[in-house]
Amino acid sequence: MIKKIDHVGIAVKNLEEAMKVWEGLGLKVDEVEEVPDQKVRTAIIHVGESRIELLEPTAEDSPIARFIAKRGEGIHHIALGVGNIEEHLNKLKESGYRLIDEKPRVGAGGARIAFVHPKAVTGVLLELCERGSE
Amino acid sequence: MIKKIDHVGIAVKNLEEAMKVWEGLGLKVDEVEEVPDQKVRTAIIHVGESRIELLEPTAEDSPIARFIAKRGEGIHHIALGVGNIEEHLNKLKESGYRLIDEKPRVGAGGARIAFVHPKAVTGVLLELCERGSE
Repeated sequence: MIKKIDHVGIAVKNLEEAMKVWEGLGLKVDEVEEVPDQKVRTAIIHVGESRIELLEPTAEDSPIARFIAKRGEGIHHIALGVGNIEEHLNKLKESGYRLIDEKPRVGAGGARIAFVHPKAVTGVLLELCERGSE
Repeated sequence: MIKKIDHVGIAVKNLEEAMKVWEGLGLKVDEVEEVPDQKVRTAIIHVGESRIELLEPTAEDSPIARFIAKRGEGIHHIALGVGNIEEHLNKLKESGYRLIDEKPRVGAGGARIAFVHPKAVTGVLLELCERGSE
């Protein structure tokens, strides 16, 4: 079951500058975290039940660095919050959706995440995201 | 005051095909609406307190048609739900943010909306959106 938009991930070149820009809009950065698995530093902004995650690459071979090199800064992905990520992944697999991650891995804040391929979802890089008790 | 992610707008070539894809993910299209001002047909999907809006161009000079011609299908914009849109626009103007719309206009569902320029917001086309009682 899909519960909410968990977050929107935004690729940025410089996290400190991006934080100033987004705070100037009237938002507040709640924490900054490094996610080595995805080679990013992320600034987390709570907005209602969702988050905006600013993502700065920490290495040249980071997926976020490649995205910026190709398309510039901007919206990188959307994440939908689900109850049981394995169940949801299995359903998508059975329905023939092309997955990037067949099994969940660990994302920012310890969430269990998996990506669906943009070719399967009208050009959208879609993340499924299961969080523990929050 | 920013209350929530109001919606994420996704540019699609064919609305009927896109609706099948997004419903296959476990979501439900609640309504389809034409927005002549922006030359789009939109399928609205409620997800928690937010929406996903699939946007199909209805004319070749639609901003969505131009986006797809340039970048292909994908995430087009994020909209933040605000309490008083004029007040928020004035604050941004005073702070020097480059605006696309200096005054609100009418969007899908009768919301009052205005866009901030992507160059001002780390490459993100950002919409502010004020809705009546919902």
